[in-house]
Amino acid sequence: MNIEMIRAAAQRLEGHVRRTPLLSSPFLDELAGRRVWVKPECLQHTGSFKFRGAWSALSALDDATRAKGVIAFSSGNHAQGVALAARMHGVPSVIVMPSDSPALKIANTRAFGAEVVLYDRATESREDIGARLSAERGLTLIKPFDEPEVIAGQGTCGLEIAQQAAEQGIETADVIVCCGGGGLTSGIALALEAEAPGLRVRPAEPQGFDDVARSLRSGAIERNNQTSGNICDAIITPQPGDITWPLIKRLCGSGLVVSEDEALQAMAQAFNRLKVVAEPGGAVALAAALYRTDQIEGDDVIVTISGGNVDPAMFARALNSL
Amino acid sequence: MNIEMIRAAAQRLEGHVRRTPLLSSPFLDELAGRRVWVKPECLQHTGSFKFRGAWSALSALDDATRAKGVIAFSSGNHAQGVALAARMHGVPSVIVMPSDSPALKIANTRAFGAEVVLYDRATESREDIGARLSAERGLTLIKPFDEPEVIAGQGTCGLEIAQQAAEQGIETADVIVCCGGGGLTSGIALALEAEAPGLRVRPAEPQGFDDVARSLRSGAIERNNQTSGNICDAIITPQPGDITWPLIKRLCGSGLVVSEDEALQAMAQAFNRLKVVAEPGGAVALAAALYRTDQIEGDDVIVTISGGNVDPAMFARALNSL
Repeated sequence: MNIEMIRAAAQRLEGHVRRTPLLSSPFLDELAGRRVWVKPECLQHTGSFKFRGAWSALSALDDATRAKGVIAFSSGNHAQGVALAARMHGVPSVIVMPSDSPALKIANTRAFGAEVVLYDRATESREDIGARLSAERGLTLIKPFDEPEVIAGQGTCGLEIAQQAAEQGIETADVIVCCGGGGLTSGIALALEAEAPGLRVRPAEPQGFDDVARSLRSGAIERNNQTSGNICDAIITPQPGDITWPLIKRLCGSGLVVSEDEALQAMAQAFNRLKVVAEPGGAVALAAALYRTDQIEGDDVIVTISGGNVDPAMFARALNSL
Repeated sequence: MNIEMIRAAAQRLEGHVRRTPLLSSPFLDELAGRRVWVKPECLQHTGSFKFRGAWSALSALDDATRAKGVIAFSSGNHAQGVALAARMHGVPSVIVMPSDSPALKIANTRAFGAEVVLYDRATESREDIGARLSAERGLTLIKPFDEPEVIAGQGTCGLEIAQQAAEQGIETADVIVCCGGGGLTSGIALALEAEAPGLRVRPAEPQGFDDVARSLRSGAIERNNQTSGNICDAIITPQPGDITWPLIKRLCGSGLVVSEDEALQAMAQAFNRLKVVAEPGGAVALAAALYRTDQIEGDDVIVTISGGNVDPAMFARALNSL
């Protein structure tokens, strides 16, 4: 896992990925007490950064392997990223989802071109189903974060941040990244190490699911006590990945932790001041920039909005939070 | 008023304006029966395209004139564009607003650096107040649309559309533009005439305020019967401008007209599928692309989202409209 893999992924993504802009607002600057720069990956294809990693992984396969198709376990942003990247490559994708997934998520994943295979959480194992389908059809599993080509794809977001920060004359800043399994966090950190060494990544997580922040404090992988029960569902994972963790440990500053209410308030700020739609998990980095100002250093802070796939009811709740 | 003025404005705006991306979604394509490309000017500084024209007009003034400051009559997007562009130029701005304007709009305009002068709609004339302040302080009036350098600034959005369409291989398409006084519409039309002659501008307006559509049918300037009472307030004007109308008449295809409900539904689609915030007036072009499909030609359609300055209550209403 190195910067050359990210540069190679960037070449493969050229013309297929959206180069998201770097947004700002005087109102957010005032609230944070420093300049706040926002990288809105909610504007990426399928509404999250996950499309980058999915495209990277698919495009890295040899033609014969890719032609057989790919498979992923996910009901969320990774599923949509893999489904659309596969369709754009003209190859089949299978997404294995729990049968009690929201109907809209199933419909959306199908609309992006995937074959959705449902399983019963209580009686079936998604790994068994995946293994059987992979064996039968020769499908390649695309893991959501602990996979070098996926991390390389997410790292292309870091290459863009390095370039956009330079355009704004920013040489040193904390770069706060919404962090689940650490694919985006470690990818951006690797990119910045090479391209903008004055920019330091800080992982942001929701309270009660701060495995990465605690791991950074203890120096070893720590687990969350629970893996559900938070509105920031897009970035809830049991623990940092085997590949992402050593990168995070080596390259990142300390973690930042925000409450659900703060994530909702950050969604409302993104609505009011930036005109973009953030999902709760996608808003934790902005929340940290706005509401953890004493834990951040420097005149500038850069944050990711990692995704915007949120239903209207949750968004209405966010709008009422300010 | 010509393409050279737009090219000159683009040079003055370089590095100050945001180059907004061109967004799309397979879901919108399916709904419209053709590929839909969205230019989200809601992501522009101050949340609307108006910043382009304001910056263009301010930067076109000679230094001594500009240093005395500028003045505008507006409680909306033009006010915010002028206020921020003036602050970024380091010169004073005065915005004349009705005293019954929403407190939030007054606060926002002040926060962008303007001096807000309030007047009583019933007893005072904003023109008299403006004339007095201009005489006393030497302020330059920045008109919202019927001003060549403002039109030139809005036209820079058209230069970007021409380039982005070419990148996508689009040679012929209708380009639907949210239309009030016609500054954005005529500016984009002039830019496309020179840079992408296969792209044809179609103005979009709300029902009951379709002065431009009716003017295009009759061949002469038609007025609206009323100038208030529609949620698309940002694009409600009495009639096309003296400078914008001849350009619109010469360059645009027929107008498209949508209902308030359709504008709200388009806002919800922009939320769901593009993750951007549109205001009602900013959503009429997308509404036309989605709900007037039989009045549009070709395999591709390009639309502007002209602004995103909408309050949470109206946005919640839009989310409930689908």
